[in-house]
Amino acid sequence: MATSQHPAQPVNLAQKASLINEQWSPRVVAEMNDYQFKVVRIEGEFIWHSHPETDEAFLVLEGTLRIDLPEGPVSVAAGELYVVPRGVEHRTAAEGEAKLMMIEPRGILNTGHEGGERTATNDLWI
Amino acid sequence: MATSQHPAQPVNLAQKASLINEQWSPRVVAEMNDYQFKVVRIEGEFIWHSHPETDEAFLVLEGTLRIDLPEGPVSVAAGELYVVPRGVEHRTAAEGEAKLMMIEPRGILNTGHEGGERTATNDLWI
Repeated sequence: MATSQHPAQPVNLAQKASLINEQWSPRVVAEMNDYQFKVVRIEGEFIWHSHPETDEAFLVLEGTLRIDLPEGPVSVAAGELYVVPRGVEHRTAAEGEAKLMMIEPRGILNTGHEGGERTATNDLWI
Repeated sequence: MATSQHPAQPVNLAQKASLINEQWSPRVVAEMNDYQFKVVRIEGEFIWHSHPETDEAFLVLEGTLRIDLPEGPVSVAAGELYVVPRGVEHRTAAEGEAKLMMIEPRGILNTGHEGGERTATNDLWI
């Protein structure tokens, strides 16, 4: 297990998210063992994808996150947590901007195994 | 890796914490792979301890968390995240009540390897 990086000071999640220049571009803010905490600004709809190797946790910081799932959409409000189980197809979306924290193992791509132009550069810190 | 349990609906973290009857008694609200998300209400000072096998993440939901560390205290406000590295002695504390979310692997005790009367029953869900 690689050594995780720990910011010396507490991380203000919404503030960090506000510093990101572009939407759909996650930035790492802290690590826990081999997991990363990432913040991201989103608006509109992402692409359908899955992560066969891992669950993926979403905590909404501001706005409202919609997670489209095979059985229908789930609405996640600020202060709420939702975990998408491994292997489950999903699509994140937001009407207006939402700021999120995501938690997942280091090395997981935002598009899973779909690839394509929506794939963000991984492991960028802010 | 054991299969993780996933609540069907989003988890309102502060609301879940408010449902806990007693302070210093963490309750699991969701899982991600072999990690657990726990909420807890705290007030006053805990005991010094460490977790040699894992980092431990704290997200403050309400109030202010103080984490005493060997090099001095860190103050963590609502909306802020702090990760205590594995093996580092620490003591959580709050003047007035604070509500927190903790993230750590399943099976980690709140007192690490210290044991004693402050050790909470593990793996209780709310």
